[in-house]
Amino acid sequence: MVVEDLEFLCELAAQLRVDSVRASAAAGSGHPTSSLSAAELMAVLLARHLRYDVDDPGNPANDHLIFSKGHASPLYYAMLKAAGAITDEELLTFRRHGSRLEGHPTPRLPWVDVATGSLGFGLPVGVGLALTGRRLDRLPYRVWVLCGDSELAEGSMWEAFEHAGHEGLSNLTAIVDVNRLGQRGPTRHGWDLAAYAARINAFGWHTIEIDGHDPGQIDFALADAAMSRRRPTAIIARTRKGMGVSAVEDREGFHGKPLKDPEQAIEELGEVREMVVRVAPPPESSRGPHRFVGGPYRGPAYEIGGVVATRDAFGAALEALGSARGNVVALDGEVADSTRTEAFAGAHPERFFEFYIAEQQMVAAAIGMQRRGWVPYVATFAAFFTRAYDFVRMAAISRADVRLVGSHAGVSIGADGPSQMGLEDLAAFRAVHGSTVLYPCDANQAAALTAAMADITGVSYLRTTRNATPVIYRPGEEFPVGGSRVLRGSGRDVVTIVAAGITVHEALAAADALAGDGVAAGVIDAYSVKPLDAATIREAADRTRLVITVEDHWPEGGLGDAVLDALADMDAKVVKLAVRVMPGSATTEEQLRDAGIDHAAIREAVHDLLAVATS
Amino acid sequence: MVVEDLEFLCELAAQLRVDSVRASAAAGSGHPTSSLSAAELMAVLLARHLRYDVDDPGNPANDHLIFSKGHASPLYYAMLKAAGAITDEELLTFRRHGSRLEGHPTPRLPWVDVATGSLGFGLPVGVGLALTGRRLDRLPYRVWVLCGDSELAEGSMWEAFEHAGHEGLSNLTAIVDVNRLGQRGPTRHGWDLAAYAARINAFGWHTIEIDGHDPGQIDFALADAAMSRRRPTAIIARTRKGMGVSAVEDREGFHGKPLKDPEQAIEELGEVREMVVRVAPPPESSRGPHRFVGGPYRGPAYEIGGVVATRDAFGAALEALGSARGNVVALDGEVADSTRTEAFAGAHPERFFEFYIAEQQMVAAAIGMQRRGWVPYVATFAAFFTRAYDFVRMAAISRADVRLVGSHAGVSIGADGPSQMGLEDLAAFRAVHGSTVLYPCDANQAAALTAAMADITGVSYLRTTRNATPVIYRPGEEFPVGGSRVLRGSGRDVVTIVAAGITVHEALAAADALAGDGVAAGVIDAYSVKPLDAATIREAADRTRLVITVEDHWPEGGLGDAVLDALADMDAKVVKLAVRVMPGSATTEEQLRDAGIDHAAIREAVHDLLAVATS
Repeated sequence: MVVEDLEFLCELAAQLRVDSVRASAAAGSGHPTSSLSAAELMAVLLARHLRYDVDDPGNPANDHLIFSKGHASPLYYAMLKAAGAITDEELLTFRRHGSRLEGHPTPRLPWVDVATGSLGFGLPVGVGLALTGRRLDRLPYRVWVLCGDSELAEGSMWEAFEHAGHEGLSNLTAIVDVNRLGQRGPTRHGWDLAAYAARINAFGWHTIEIDGHDPGQIDFALADAAMSRRRPTAIIARTRKGMGVSAVEDREGFHGKPLKDPEQAIEELGEVREMVVRVAPPPESSRGPHRFVGGPYRGPAYEIGGVVATRDAFGAALEALGSARGNVVALDGEVADSTRTEAFAGAHPERFFEFYIAEQQMVAAAIGMQRRGWVPYVATFAAFFTRAYDFVRMAAISRADVRLVGSHAGVSIGADGPSQMGLEDLAAFRAVHGSTVLYPCDANQAAALTAAMADITGVSYLRTTRNATPVIYRPGEEFPVGGSRVLRGSGRDVVTIVAAGITVHEALAAADALAGDGVAAGVIDAYSVKPLDAATIREAADRTRLVITVEDHWPEGGLGDAVLDALADMDAKVVKLAVRVMPGSATTEEQLRDAGIDHAAIREAVHDLLAVATS
Repeated sequence: MVVEDLEFLCELAAQLRVDSVRASAAAGSGHPTSSLSAAELMAVLLARHLRYDVDDPGNPANDHLIFSKGHASPLYYAMLKAAGAITDEELLTFRRHGSRLEGHPTPRLPWVDVATGSLGFGLPVGVGLALTGRRLDRLPYRVWVLCGDSELAEGSMWEAFEHAGHEGLSNLTAIVDVNRLGQRGPTRHGWDLAAYAARINAFGWHTIEIDGHDPGQIDFALADAAMSRRRPTAIIARTRKGMGVSAVEDREGFHGKPLKDPEQAIEELGEVREMVVRVAPPPESSRGPHRFVGGPYRGPAYEIGGVVATRDAFGAALEALGSARGNVVALDGEVADSTRTEAFAGAHPERFFEFYIAEQQMVAAAIGMQRRGWVPYVATFAAFFTRAYDFVRMAAISRADVRLVGSHAGVSIGADGPSQMGLEDLAAFRAVHGSTVLYPCDANQAAALTAAMADITGVSYLRTTRNATPVIYRPGEEFPVGGSRVLRGSGRDVVTIVAAGITVHEALAAADALAGDGVAAGVIDAYSVKPLDAATIREAADRTRLVITVEDHWPEGGLGDAVLDALADMDAKVVKLAVRVMPGSATTEEQLRDAGIDHAAIREAVHDLLAVATS
């Protein structure tokens, strides 16, 4: 590197520092010290290695830069200013009401791929983007992830190291800013770069240990990473938190706080600069991203009267969807034979991703893929999505369109016991901002909803059932998201039963038995748990005034609560049947009976309700 | 080892295999092949290394054996039979209705420390038990964890390896059953024992690679592990799934299925045996577990009219509780300065555990500690407990008593943005079986509830607020779990406002403003979100018929849904005010206003509701 370049990089780093200090000072909050430690690392990346068309953030050939240590947002925004993407005026709106420059980056800014701020999330998403570049887009873009040293304590980071190492994602570089100090105090390994290198290296990565404030070393390491052809690279950089400002440099107690004397700090850092870096655009290419050929959608069809598990129908529909749409991809957590994504894997092996038992990495990868326009379906047991719940939360903040499919829902799985039963999934997914929650009861409905999910924005969730259930809908029937089906209903109904999934069949059996008892009961299949078809349920409730909800789920936060919400302003009595006792092992029939959600329990609940209502 | 011992161990392994096959055959389901691979490993452990008083599972000096690969439950139950803990008759009740022998082990069996079956969970709990032995009980018991090779893909395992390596937990041994085959097919690393050893070794463990079917090698490795004085040991054992039964041995497609021809398998394995192993009891000791001295509880007291954050009060109360009760311990995820467990850490350093940013390991450790009678409080940001949601779910299945405290709840944190805001925590924790959810609004209440949590069984959750809020209750007031406080209320009330935490203060301000408008509004502080004080809320709703709930949380699954549930059979209109738009950065006041949950929004909602009600 020539001297002029070195001087430029040092000046640029100083500008990034000054602007980090200024933005935090203007906000009165933020993380300047965590920004200062990585200023040289990001200056050299921005000026010499990143290939990015700042004017066209959607350019498929662009590199990707993820701040896994999202709290260093002042540094990121300072980079955007230096690159000419935002003005100095906007920089100083940091953390203010209405500003796009939030405390932690979100895709409200077009240059941001994914919201960060929950540590341990950015690198797994980077793995997803690198996988996308390698196996889907088939473009030579690179993925750069700035990581903190503290976040290496998160297991999700090691899922990412393992997956990237195994896949040989040489297009991925993790830049670890080892500034020694976490929020509360020193990190576990301090400046022991070798401790990090040994661990990361053991997972199949190329590692380089450098002085993170030396532009020459940084430049060499980034170039080395860019040249890697077989392995991902981790640049493990020794840095000083608060570097350049003596009041805070390498001192405890200054995490997440604006500097007390920003003027003094700016003076120490030289001055306010207004340098603009022309970030190198990606190389011109004759070809765009790879696309797989699509065709007509030929989903599965099941004859009424058959008995088919909704997970089977999901699997068949997903395979067909893969044939119809070249942008559909599937991800599974080593249970493809159970979730039934195996059919997709067989038919579309290039678009199937095995994540082994690493649910966090799996969900993060889907978030990365959708950012590049792919349509990911992610499958595991409903229960095991709880392992990735934070990442689902972050998907919503990332405005990501991801489709999650949880099998083996509820006590109805039978003998495997509660650890395998998804019993809180409806509550968890309903409480995700902008989510859609679907729960089909029959195979044709499951297939239709699987196909419909491809066009749903945000986080959508499909809950499937392990056991075979009767086919009650004709092939080709439509099931709009937000809809429901009135399966039994007449003006004579004295009670309305609202069910979804496996309990629909119990509700139908109960309604038949009740008809024999001389009681007319309506049955609504609320397959769209969120958004709920409030209008239909309200109409029925308005007539019967008595509603029973029945769900294979804990009583909190699921279908029953959704119905109560829909009827919040109505005079209707609602009784919730749900799983209230910790199940053990038993047959499906025994489980449903023990939980009080089988046809006999529904029938009894209706009689009890009518007795109270007429007493 | 003498020849007789070797023959005995081979026979014992054969018995464990036969009984695994028989149990699965009797159940018609289960995981015999995953049991067969580890038969020698467990036979040698049981007969020669485990120190356990089978007749007294509560003996504090007992070793701990955790099946992290919980699906190998047939093997575990076969061990219990061989140890004389259960009869052959009970063994054959495996997976039947009412049997204690569930598909995956749970503490319904007194010898089981923790429910397993969600892979990646058992080893982190083992770390917790090993920490307990070392730093709390101060007893020489050992912790043995049988791990699968598939589950090494889970990030939580690497949180465990890191924590145990860093703490030098030589009393912990992971026995990794590398049988090469996962559920769907081959694992990532197959029989590459060196790949596992390199990774685990890099995290500071002693590793031994052995043939997992050679009793001599196993015996040596277990003895070596028991002698380790500075590092935890991982025994990485090459095994064959389905070992000993040629129809399934080392063949794909037989995961989680009973054998097709169990009679043939038993013949191949020799015969049904009825050997009984006398498991060595723990060595007699002159001393029991270490106990820390307690004393009187002198909690903090705050004057009415002051302004104190509930997190501060929690921190002060926890410190006082630590002085009062020697069995109280605190765990934090590198945010003790934010959650305020720092006070406890300073006063009771021997009982404070820093887990860095590894929330899964942190929660798992608490589950291990409570198993030995300690009273753990676990703290991080409310948002970051979502990272450990599966472990919280497993805590409930484990019948564990753990206290979780989430700070920085809701949009009220202000400028940090949505990644740092707990906005789904009430929904997530309400949907945990047997849980208690508390949300104090003032410092004295927070202190009282913190102390009360020590005696709550199951999973309990306390939600604290970042910002200071007015002190409205007198020091020493009582706040029973399941209770509430009527803060405004008279026979003239035309509407009831139910709030909790920070929205209580908004509700009070709204009620005052409404009084100025000539509208009498009741205000209930529902600090116990679960169990909710349904009686008080129903009484108020019965009078006013109009209820407004207001919460700093998404609309689904939180306080509003809890109130709707309490009023499900009543004729009362309920309007839920909650956070419905993705927040960005802003001040606390702006956030509450934008979310429509501040005093002005409540006031407006009341007027709207009255207008509709009277129209």
